[in-house]
Amino acid sequence: MYKPKNLQDRITHRLKISLGHLEKVITMVENQEYCIDILHQLQAVQEGLKSTGNLVLENHLKTCASDAIKKGETKKAIAEIMQILEKKNI
Amino acid sequence: MYKPKNLQDRITHRLKISLGHLEKVITMVENQEYCIDILHQLQAVQEGLKSTGNLVLENHLKTCASDAIKKGETKKAIAEIMQILEKKNI
Amino acid sequence: MYKPKNLQDRITHRLKISLGHLEKVITMVENQEYCIDILHQLQAVQEGLKSTGNLVLENHLKTCASDAIKKGETKKAIAEIMQILEKKNI
Amino acid sequence: MYKPKNLQDRITHRLKISLGHLEKVITMVENQEYCIDILHQLQAVQEGLKSTGNLVLENHLKTCASDAIKKGETKKAIAEIMQILEKKNI
Repeated sequence: MYKPKNLQDRITHRLKISLGHLEKVITMVENQEYCIDILHQLQAVQEGLKSTGNLVLENHLKTCASDAIKKGETKKAIAEIMQILEKKNI
Repeated sequence: MYKPKNLQDRITHRLKISLGHLEKVITMVENQEYCIDILHQLQAVQEGLKSTGNLVLENHLKTCASDAIKKGETKKAIAEIMQILEKKNI
Repeated sequence: MYKPKNLQDRITHRLKISLGHLEKVITMVENQEYCIDILHQLQAVQEGLKSTGNLVLENHLKTCASDAIKKGETKKAIAEIMQILEKKNI
Repeated sequence: MYKPKNLQDRITHRLKISLGHLEKVITMVENQEYCIDILHQLQAVQEGLKSTGNLVLENHLKTCASDAIKKGETKKAIAEIMQILEKKNI
């Protein structure tokens, strides 16, 4: 089993899995597979990216954002985070 | 025009607007209006709530979360935020 | 236990539950409860509305949209549905 | 400029653009670029996939789903579509 050494490795590893998954979705389209099956796989890729994105965001909050807040740069740090969050739904 | 005195007032005001909007959606359903029209109005209510939720979240980041991070309670503060974010999409 | 007589009743009933839930969220804001608790409840209201919206959409597909497609009005029926779906995420 | 011959080509072409975009995001992570910049690019990939997914879904509604509904297989057709839609947000 692959054991990532650190968070950067873990994020890269997960994104590469999504990349391989997306390649398979392209093959499904080229092979004219059933739309509904393609959509399920595409949604799985999207779920994977969303989850990796949350990992990147969590890491950002724990490192850069926390450091910025401790240094009193709260306003800028939060504006950056809100820009990302406002694109999310619900 | 209504001018909210502070953020709490502004959030309450916005939620009450969404409440009135939702009441109108219920009337549309009771009057058997066209599903597509009902769906557009329901999505507008959801958009309103999402946007007010982001305001609550932004306020949380600027106040409670920033204070907690400055006091060294970073881990708990971020875990709470991530729980909210993981329910969001994309 | 409340037993809705038909789908319209079921949708109205569910929307009224969400309305009551939203009223409670407003009270939480007025009582200055913890932002994170407010956000969890607000997300629950949004989840409820999303789920009721899907019920309205499913009903639309089963009735109006299917009828339109059978009458050859496929293009208009699908354009209306896609307008709703494009506002959804993922 | 690339001109897709048909819808399948157009979908494949778009997915390949997202694939190239995702490869760039992986390079950004490997180069330890700023989290917020990575997140913006990752969200752009997700937006691209969402939009291509909607194209696949629209095509499904126009072809397979409409045919099934015309043949009286409405129930199965709609159950398949709702399974996809319930994973979407709002």
